[in-house]
Amino acid sequence: MTDTDVTRTPAELLAELTVEEKAALLDGSDFWHTEPVERLGIPALMVTDGPHGLRKQAEGGDHLGLANSVPATCFPPAAGLASSWDVDLLRRVGEALGRETRAESVSVLLGPGVNMKRSPLCGRNFEYFSEDPVLAGDLAAALVEGVQSQGVGTSLKHFAANNQETQRMTVSADVDERTLREIYLTAFERVVTKAQPWTVMCSYNRINGVYASEDPWLLTDVLRGEWGFSGLVVSDWGAVNVREDGVRAGLDLEMPSSSGAGTQRILEAVSTGSLSTEDLDRAVLRVLELVEKARPALADPGTFDTDAHHALAREAALQSAVLLRNEDRILPLAAAGGTIAVVGEFARTPRYQGAGSSQVNPTRLDDALTALRAQFDGSRDVTFAPGYVPEADPDDATGEAARALAAEAVDVARTADVVVLFLGLPASYESEGYDREHTNLPPEQLDLLDAVVAANPRTVVVLANGSVVNLEPWQHTVPAVLEGWLGGQAGGAAVADLLSGVANPSGKLAETVPVNYRDNPTVGNFPGEHGHVRYGEGLLIGYRWYDAHSLPVAAAFGHGLSYTTFGYSDLRVETRGNSVDVHVTITNTGDVAGSEVVQVYVADVDATVFRPDAELKGFARVTLEPGESREVAVELDERAFSFWHSATGRWVVEGGEFGIRVGASSRDVRLATTVTLPGDGVSVPLQLDSELEVWLQHPDAAAAVRERIDGTPWAGMLFDPQHGAMMRAIPLLRLTRFPGFPITETELPGLIPG
Amino acid sequence: MTDTDVTRTPAELLAELTVEEKAALLDGSDFWHTEPVERLGIPALMVTDGPHGLRKQAEGGDHLGLANSVPATCFPPAAGLASSWDVDLLRRVGEALGRETRAESVSVLLGPGVNMKRSPLCGRNFEYFSEDPVLAGDLAAALVEGVQSQGVGTSLKHFAANNQETQRMTVSADVDERTLREIYLTAFERVVTKAQPWTVMCSYNRINGVYASEDPWLLTDVLRGEWGFSGLVVSDWGAVNVREDGVRAGLDLEMPSSSGAGTQRILEAVSTGSLSTEDLDRAVLRVLELVEKARPALADPGTFDTDAHHALAREAALQSAVLLRNEDRILPLAAAGGTIAVVGEFARTPRYQGAGSSQVNPTRLDDALTALRAQFDGSRDVTFAPGYVPEADPDDATGEAARALAAEAVDVARTADVVVLFLGLPASYESEGYDREHTNLPPEQLDLLDAVVAANPRTVVVLANGSVVNLEPWQHTVPAVLEGWLGGQAGGAAVADLLSGVANPSGKLAETVPVNYRDNPTVGNFPGEHGHVRYGEGLLIGYRWYDAHSLPVAAAFGHGLSYTTFGYSDLRVETRGNSVDVHVTITNTGDVAGSEVVQVYVADVDATVFRPDAELKGFARVTLEPGESREVAVELDERAFSFWHSATGRWVVEGGEFGIRVGASSRDVRLATTVTLPGDGVSVPLQLDSELEVWLQHPDAAAAVRERIDGTPWAGMLFDPQHGAMMRAIPLLRLTRFPGFPITETELPGLIPG
Repeated sequence: MTDTDVTRTPAELLAELTVEEKAALLDGSDFWHTEPVERLGIPALMVTDGPHGLRKQAEGGDHLGLANSVPATCFPPAAGLASSWDVDLLRRVGEALGRETRAESVSVLLGPGVNMKRSPLCGRNFEYFSEDPVLAGDLAAALVEGVQSQGVGTSLKHFAANNQETQRMTVSADVDERTLREIYLTAFERVVTKAQPWTVMCSYNRINGVYASEDPWLLTDVLRGEWGFSGLVVSDWGAVNVREDGVRAGLDLEMPSSSGAGTQRILEAVSTGSLSTEDLDRAVLRVLELVEKARPALADPGTFDTDAHHALAREAALQSAVLLRNEDRILPLAAAGGTIAVVGEFARTPRYQGAGSSQVNPTRLDDALTALRAQFDGSRDVTFAPGYVPEADPDDATGEAARALAAEAVDVARTADVVVLFLGLPASYESEGYDREHTNLPPEQLDLLDAVVAANPRTVVVLANGSVVNLEPWQHTVPAVLEGWLGGQAGGAAVADLLSGVANPSGKLAETVPVNYRDNPTVGNFPGEHGHVRYGEGLLIGYRWYDAHSLPVAAAFGHGLSYTTFGYSDLRVETRGNSVDVHVTITNTGDVAGSEVVQVYVADVDATVFRPDAELKGFARVTLEPGESREVAVELDERAFSFWHSATGRWVVEGGEFGIRVGASSRDVRLATTVTLPGDGVSVPLQLDSELEVWLQHPDAAAAVRERIDGTPWAGMLFDPQHGAMMRAIPLLRLTRFPGFPITETELPGLIPG
Repeated sequence: MTDTDVTRTPAELLAELTVEEKAALLDGSDFWHTEPVERLGIPALMVTDGPHGLRKQAEGGDHLGLANSVPATCFPPAAGLASSWDVDLLRRVGEALGRETRAESVSVLLGPGVNMKRSPLCGRNFEYFSEDPVLAGDLAAALVEGVQSQGVGTSLKHFAANNQETQRMTVSADVDERTLREIYLTAFERVVTKAQPWTVMCSYNRINGVYASEDPWLLTDVLRGEWGFSGLVVSDWGAVNVREDGVRAGLDLEMPSSSGAGTQRILEAVSTGSLSTEDLDRAVLRVLELVEKARPALADPGTFDTDAHHALAREAALQSAVLLRNEDRILPLAAAGGTIAVVGEFARTPRYQGAGSSQVNPTRLDDALTALRAQFDGSRDVTFAPGYVPEADPDDATGEAARALAAEAVDVARTADVVVLFLGLPASYESEGYDREHTNLPPEQLDLLDAVVAANPRTVVVLANGSVVNLEPWQHTVPAVLEGWLGGQAGGAAVADLLSGVANPSGKLAETVPVNYRDNPTVGNFPGEHGHVRYGEGLLIGYRWYDAHSLPVAAAFGHGLSYTTFGYSDLRVETRGNSVDVHVTITNTGDVAGSEVVQVYVADVDATVFRPDAELKGFARVTLEPGESREVAVELDERAFSFWHSATGRWVVEGGEFGIRVGASSRDVRLATTVTLPGDGVSVPLQLDSELEVWLQHPDAAAAVRERIDGTPWAGMLFDPQHGAMMRAIPLLRLTRFPGFPITETELPGLIPG
């Protein structure tokens, strides 16, 4: 055998490694590479940032990995992609990302991030998909499948409950298990079980006091034991706390390099026996298995077509945009007519991605102004005024220069047939590393909006932002709002296509836009303090909250308009055990082709536990020519009806009635029906201090208890119509302490069924 | 010495007791008595239920203590009394309760209950004071002082976090310490520190998984160690779980009798050494000390004047009623004029107290109909129609008999000059033992309301209810609403006094009435499931929640109208250290005498932790003749500005600016100013994983850390204007793992200042 002989299996390689080599393999060799073992032909793998594009740092990058990177296609970040609700698109974007990753000899692309959008203020919301775990999970799974189809890996992150940037390195997400299971882990679970990512990246934060990087319940029991994850767990960059505890818990690889500190701690722990050889070997084997998976692509990197990828980025941006409002069908803009005034610096200098570790160096960059001028070349005049400076400092924003910019914009707007006003968040408003302080657009942009609308009420607003902005104070003053999110490198061209009607909007909101920030579920519970943040709203994230509190919203989860309209008919449901197949017919009732996202929400009507009013459990996208109809099928498996049953620690479907609501948004239910499911027949386990009522409900204990009480003076009281319920709510153990109660404390254990 | 020699001190008696006698003394002898030791002249003490009246069961009561009791004055339950905001009234009611308790040879009256009104659905809210701990605590302290001034004891209950009836015997209130300290323990703390109740009653429930009846932190560390409680802790009836664990934790007396079970467990635990003699003796001594305190009153029970107590009950009911609405000054009713139609069975058959352990057998019972007829005898006709049957079963409520009752009421209403419509909750709607399912009035009453208002818009609604009812759908259809709460035995007469103007309303709401149930802070977090309820709203109970979410309310905390008006002027504040004296001048600007409750709210403007928008920290009641002015002083001590600082486990005033808002309700601020306080100068203690920023802020560590970084390539990055804040949010321990970081992991502990 020679050093370059790669026919040895990971297990065989493991057997040849010294303990020092093993420990070294569990640490990075620098910021972006794993450790090689040259004598055994084990190469260093490169991993890089960037869920929506490859961020491969050029040689000689800085210590922190924030310096310039090689050019790569910048797709829309997840906030945009998620609004497509398009599993197929996500898979194709994933394939393109995989091709670029492979072509650059990178083995793992560090993404996607499927954390939930718990607060609108989270600085990293632009990188995350949704406030709904089913939507986030299904879209991210498709992206992972796409990337990995190219022979390179992904890193599903940030596992778990990393839903804020403030104190992200230390804060404990204090969250009950049911909420964790039903909301914060579900997207991860769906991606792992559907797409088996090569790696999972543990998060910085703690969960109920335990660092995610050293939580055996999270990294081993749940991730591997329950979900069947077979890949490697890597630390978020700098997330390791006590290295050997991490290895024992299931954190395999520390990144970036700890300069030997981690290696040394592992070696010491092995030598003192506090870390077992089995634990060490298991982690090392996972590194070796990752190398094994990566070898074929490294041997044959291939190339990619930047034009084709740019075209795909444009398609993705088209699907990502959400038409929030379109009164009097002011959009699309007519092909011919008067002047179109384009106002706003973002039309010329697009804001198209977020800041931090996901920042990509794009291969090209389209701007909307150029694209609109091209679209209307010869048919309509397109004028322009920048209106504002995006990152103006507060003094300049209200100074003379700013007033001059606004005045110029108003002049341009006043004489136009229609105004397209580009507004959005400056880059400094949202980034990895810190959270937002409010959800407003910059004040100078809001002032500009007022002035422009006063000058010309035919004003269409186009937004560029990675996380929701406050719409309510102004959205009703304009006839149309197009939410473009951060559109990636082709976002400008895509917006032009949508405005002109070359393309028809079909995006749907993946998160609710509240009327105002103070409506949101995390008020008082975000970002926490002194190292703890309480997930006090429990299951009521996003639309679940606004629905539970009957709050009006500025734009509902799932909302998004089209240039055509869709009819819903013929809802049919078929029940198989605890699963349900939903069929519905969608008809394009308008006059242009378009796509609709059919959303299926489930309501648990009979639950013995608290359940949200309705939850998204399936969706389907359908594209229809004018007048065309098609039947859409959505399959709801058992999980769609279950909840996490804390008393037994498992998923349970409670038998009874469920509502099935099919709609065009969470608040636009078009058709509804009910199904009755058999359920799992689970009963709460008996304990000595279970309430008498629980004993009397238990199939195997009720008779014996009842027999002891019947015929005593207690029977009258315990089964009394007025006081009985109150008495039966007393734990049987406590009742045994009442004078003369017919069951004694000592005989109670014998009544619990074996 | 003889058996009846009572000159021996508790300590001397303790020395003479056998271990069997000691153990027996820690258990009740029956449902209402402690154990006597006849050979030593230690009597059995009687304790009885009833915060708002004595509920002494006649001999031969049932096993559960729910059978009939001797007659006693029934004062308004706490929900009413609290609306008086009248500390002096509470003290006088307490004195009367104390006289009755003493006269019946009862040694301890089991109340008051100062649990917070967390959810409007809690079945026992009628027995509790408020959603605000300062208001609840100060009023309850006065009641305790009053009772105990008569030589008998009280039992402050239910300690603690017992804020619901559902699963009350087992549910764990899962609540963070800051919330516990600032909201759920504060009222207890105020009563203990101001009034030193003879006993505290531990609650049934668990707190963060630990039964209150066996929680050493709660019963010993906090209650005795921090607050200086010197009395006895008694179990709520049936709250003992593991008896010896309770003794060890600080639960002295088990009630009711456990039929020897508790005694036996204690003896076994002592014999095996799992319970120390010190722990046993400490609990026994407290029983003996209680006996010692009770002896003088037992030797000289005295009598009480039922007429005088009835008059006091009437005064209390007058102060308890809240005039929520009074358009066009429809109230008070003119002394002479057309017919007054009284509609509603509650006018004739008052609902005046709640159900459960607090149910009193009143000495007399006034009804509003009789009282109104007496008031207007000869000057105005008073007609009557019952309108509904309060506890009609659902079928009867909509049946023919119900329709006939409603029709009769409409006829009576139509021809009257004014209608006084008595509505309210039937007794079965709210009780100890279960929670409400909604906050609506019964549907037949709402139908009647609509019909009566349609027949005669001059309709005044008088409410009888122990917990808030939904006002929003109908309150704007009537010109006046008088919230009478449950008014006790003289409530009917008091309402008549208020309607006729013999008395002027001065009550203020001690709890918010939300627009609808779904606005309330516990939606999704009440009543919990599978043994746990999450206090997810944290500090945001009651008005704190509605303010934080900018929600409209049907009636604000602190709201209450008068037949006169009050002017606020000359707000003056004086700062002494971290305390502030507030002075404000109140003027009766109307034409009748009246009382105003001046409320002082504090806002922490500069806080580094989350704080509610504003919190009640003081209040004062002032009675003024027309045109009269008086300066009112409210003292705000250090605690009024402090919060529970989780990182150091103490109360902290953070230096900086505070808002002082003086108003007639939480949403009717009349005068406001700010003060700047020096604060306590507390800094967060350093740990290895404290963020770099925390190290750099620490007065004793910053220089050394800074020195190590300055001059290295890291200085630029860590203090970079764009990325610096993000980098400084990394724990220093993690930074040491980055390649080339100028501080190593091993030298870090040395940088923590000794």
